[in-house]
Amino acid sequence: MNTKAVVLFGHGARDTRWREPFDRLATLWKAQHPKVMVELAFLELMQPSLEEAISSLWTAGATEVVVVPVFFGQGGHLRNDFPVLLSSCQEKFPGVKLSTTPAVGEDGAVLQAIIDFGARAL
Amino acid sequence: MNTKAVVLFGHGARDTRWREPFDRLATLWKAQHPKVMVELAFLELMQPSLEEAISSLWTAGATEVVVVPVFFGQGGHLRNDFPVLLSSCQEKFPGVKLSTTPAVGEDGAVLQAIIDFGARAL
Repeated sequence: MNTKAVVLFGHGARDTRWREPFDRLATLWKAQHPKVMVELAFLELMQPSLEEAISSLWTAGATEVVVVPVFFGQGGHLRNDFPVLLSSCQEKFPGVKLSTTPAVGEDGAVLQAIIDFGARAL
Repeated sequence: MNTKAVVLFGHGARDTRWREPFDRLATLWKAQHPKVMVELAFLELMQPSLEEAISSLWTAGATEVVVVPVFFGQGGHLRNDFPVLLSSCQEKFPGVKLSTTPAVGEDGAVLQAIIDFGARAL
């Protein structure tokens, strides 16, 4: 049986308060999709790393992990650093099938929510 | 008469393709709120700067500009750099009333759209 899990993958920042929306995302996920394990992971400056998050999910029984890049744009981090990192993780955890989605900023509904947020501020 | 306008303010990146979602946001805004002028602006690495965007809106007749930070987390950039930058712009354009919103990552609907995007990928 396949056990799917999700990693919400963000950039990371020096200021720990930066991660608050990511913690909220994990809380929302757990409330709405309790059967699908979720971990946060960060490219730099924050813990856990992508490797650590995948390790946790593997230990907890995940056999498939979808990594969702919580980034607006697809620049050097996602086009260059991220594929290398994902490939390295796949080598380290051959028992977990890793896949990824486009950045959340590619999603029309996410962009529409941003537009609506701005419009409410007028 | 007050003429309101919006600046969608992002971080910026070296890779020009990073800005694609921001260009889509501006296009969506113009289609849905054609009476409210919109400009993109970037903290670093991309043009225009916040000052340049406000200058354009001022030249075009705006008297109030709401700056929407298109960031997920509120870390050092938004807590430290941004208020200084906004204050400097306010001094340079005393005829424009500047205000700001929280980061879009503080908005529940934006977070929900991210959750739904991830769930669709499973």
